[in-house]
Amino acid sequence: MGSSTKPGSSTVLYTARWVLPIAAAAIEQGAVLTEGSTIREVGPERDLVTALDVPSAVRRVDLGECVLMPGLVNVHTHLELSILRGWFEEPEFFSWIRQLTEVKYGKLSREDFELSARWGVVEAIRAGVTTVGDASDQGVVLDALIESGLAGIAYQEVFGPDPIDCDIRTADLGDRLAELLHRQTARVRVGVSPHAPYTVSKPLFERTSDIARQHKLPISLHIAESRAEVELIRSGRGPFADFLRGRGIAVKAHSCSPIEYLANTGILTERPLLVHAVQLDSDDLDRLQNCDARIAHCPKSNAKLAHGVAPLTEMLTRGLRTGLGSDGTVSNNSCDLIDEARFACLQQRARGDLGPAKKLSAIDLVRLMTLGGAEALGVENEIGTLEAGKRADLIAVDLSGSRHQPVIEPETALAFTASGGDVVLTVVDGQVLYTDGKVQTLDEVELARQVVATTKRLREK
Amino acid sequence: MGSSTKPGSSTVLYTARWVLPIAAAAIEQGAVLTEGSTIREVGPERDLVTALDVPSAVRRVDLGECVLMPGLVNVHTHLELSILRGWFEEPEFFSWIRQLTEVKYGKLSREDFELSARWGVVEAIRAGVTTVGDASDQGVVLDALIESGLAGIAYQEVFGPDPIDCDIRTADLGDRLAELLHRQTARVRVGVSPHAPYTVSKPLFERTSDIARQHKLPISLHIAESRAEVELIRSGRGPFADFLRGRGIAVKAHSCSPIEYLANTGILTERPLLVHAVQLDSDDLDRLQNCDARIAHCPKSNAKLAHGVAPLTEMLTRGLRTGLGSDGTVSNNSCDLIDEARFACLQQRARGDLGPAKKLSAIDLVRLMTLGGAEALGVENEIGTLEAGKRADLIAVDLSGSRHQPVIEPETALAFTASGGDVVLTVVDGQVLYTDGKVQTLDEVELARQVVATTKRLREK
Repeated sequence: MGSSTKPGSSTVLYTARWVLPIAAAAIEQGAVLTEGSTIREVGPERDLVTALDVPSAVRRVDLGECVLMPGLVNVHTHLELSILRGWFEEPEFFSWIRQLTEVKYGKLSREDFELSARWGVVEAIRAGVTTVGDASDQGVVLDALIESGLAGIAYQEVFGPDPIDCDIRTADLGDRLAELLHRQTARVRVGVSPHAPYTVSKPLFERTSDIARQHKLPISLHIAESRAEVELIRSGRGPFADFLRGRGIAVKAHSCSPIEYLANTGILTERPLLVHAVQLDSDDLDRLQNCDARIAHCPKSNAKLAHGVAPLTEMLTRGLRTGLGSDGTVSNNSCDLIDEARFACLQQRARGDLGPAKKLSAIDLVRLMTLGGAEALGVENEIGTLEAGKRADLIAVDLSGSRHQPVIEPETALAFTASGGDVVLTVVDGQVLYTDGKVQTLDEVELARQVVATTKRLREK
Repeated sequence: MGSSTKPGSSTVLYTARWVLPIAAAAIEQGAVLTEGSTIREVGPERDLVTALDVPSAVRRVDLGECVLMPGLVNVHTHLELSILRGWFEEPEFFSWIRQLTEVKYGKLSREDFELSARWGVVEAIRAGVTTVGDASDQGVVLDALIESGLAGIAYQEVFGPDPIDCDIRTADLGDRLAELLHRQTARVRVGVSPHAPYTVSKPLFERTSDIARQHKLPISLHIAESRAEVELIRSGRGPFADFLRGRGIAVKAHSCSPIEYLANTGILTERPLLVHAVQLDSDDLDRLQNCDARIAHCPKSNAKLAHGVAPLTEMLTRGLRTGLGSDGTVSNNSCDLIDEARFACLQQRARGDLGPAKKLSAIDLVRLMTLGGAEALGVENEIGTLEAGKRADLIAVDLSGSRHQPVIEPETALAFTASGGDVVLTVVDGQVLYTDGKVQTLDEVELARQVVATTKRLREK
């Protein structure tokens, strides 16, 4: 350890049975030294302890039979919908999204959405998620993230399937962004999310793209999710087409895939985070590779709504910047990135004969839930690994239980026997958000009471 | 409640926010009254409390924000291999099974297998598994089950790919069974398991079948698991064929599927529990339907070893008696039937267009992990539902956490947000095996110490 380390009250030495730096191999009996919001050193415990200048001034946190690793990066959430968990168990997508839209606009107040965002934040923190890529219609997630200490990108959603509304929607986005940008921080930034091809007109995609370029904002959007979406774009038919026509909106066949359609809007040059990307052919994969695409792979949500299996193995083989997203608890129904990673791996392996699929090892999965997510959000220089100089975002996952033991390789145990419920410590920017079984930055007992009361009220309406 | 109830020291009234009888719809604020090892009444708490003759003599256990349901039935385990969790992370099946076989016969002592079986039992009990269908080579699982209070069928495995050894193997099986049958109980019964077509010769299948018929023993066997097995049976080629020939065993092409091959041995008339059943064509499904087959669906193990996706939806549509199996932790790597059910559902839904797949609802999943398993093991008259007269096998799963709330339907929460780690109570035959975070019938702290020490010794060899 160099002389740059100045131990003090804000200097903490975390030690654990295993440390996964991601940037290097697992360290048995490892340690991470943080100073304020920054990681100073990562290495074997004995090396760090020996090198400490003033050991007694460093606070020590021994995590025992845990794996200490970078915080999990959940690249696609809808935290403002968290209290709608379990409301819509219909597995047919068009019907599901219609039911959701009706409840969202017909029942929930701004206060309900604010509560919902906070509740989603509680779940995320407890599950070891330290950074989210969140898409919010109501613009309530930015504050929930800031208040809780969580990090991420709060993408402001944009809707408007009718080209005639394009100016109004664009002006509205401008107003919303002005307000949000005023409140963003270094840790919680604002982005934009033109929702999906079935809810956003082509000119609105273009205008949103212009605004993002102008303000240097990251973009996230849903694409190539359902077969119904493919049908709409390719042939101008199916449930989305019928619905839009029913609202007097002209629909035409574009005779191309959703990815090609998106390419034609010009937005792909902005390198948006492409959420879902299930319905892809090999030309689409070529297109994504050529534009150095970022992918939010949401395997559980995609499966639950019967969309199919995204070609994760091929995406990784082609070097696409890919992270895992839980999607909203309104579809998943949980925000558990470890469970998500396990599902992603098993689903890919089940596709059949080995070969590239063999690559999805436990080590690949651990990378996917940390550095992969950071790359997908474009923040890999700040987070995603435990390395000196990076932000002190780290978590500890307890592997002492009988369901994990024996542990031969910590990555294997993490990926194949652990889940979000095994997380015992969540630290973001050096601040402890979760420890001793309690979220430290929000009053989760009061929030739980409000969730129960609000759910009761909303269900009775 | 009828006058047959005699409240006393062995009478317990369990109450919980939700009760899932399986045989009937979920009951909010429900109760289960047990007397000794038997369920006496199931219903709304207020009804049972009102009807109690001598309420003060009944011990009350209020489980709060839990779902109280029948114990989980894990129809396929290899508990004696539990301490090999994480040893073989090779996803290519032939290589995986060769590595396993070498370690199993080359490194583990009888004491190691006994420890391993107990360790597997600890994990199962903690995960709410109350009944297992376990395949054991060493014959050590029967005692571990009896000692721990767990229920199940301990299938004695049979190996012998060379027809020349058939008499010896049959005699050996007879000896082993004589010993095991002497020790079986009403709760833990003995079965036989001719391992698989690549490890058991055709005459040995026939002889095992005869022995099972003679002793009225249930049968379990691995079938149609890997593509390598299909290749062996159909064309007499592939890694299994090469391996067998290398040991001087004649291999021929049978020009049929593994299921048809099995039918030709005559063993299907004994209605064995067919484990895996991944590689099936529609003729095979017809055959299974015609013989009223029992299925052990092991989706996570099948996926992890890249075998593919078993046609679960079709099996259920055809009314096959189907349960879920975790398989050994040596392949899965966990014994978590809730996680298994969730994976099964999502995997089937991801197969694509809806229709029959739509049927796999949360209610279907809860049935699959309880009554479905009981039917697959042929014990549906004793367990699998909460009904008066059935065995008092029940578990409580805590849904109070932020990752489960709000709970709209308890089945949805159980299937899509819970996992084995949320189980807080496991009762078999009226005996509490797990409560207050501790397994009550085994010294799990001492076992954990032994697992760590044994793993260290074995890895150093």
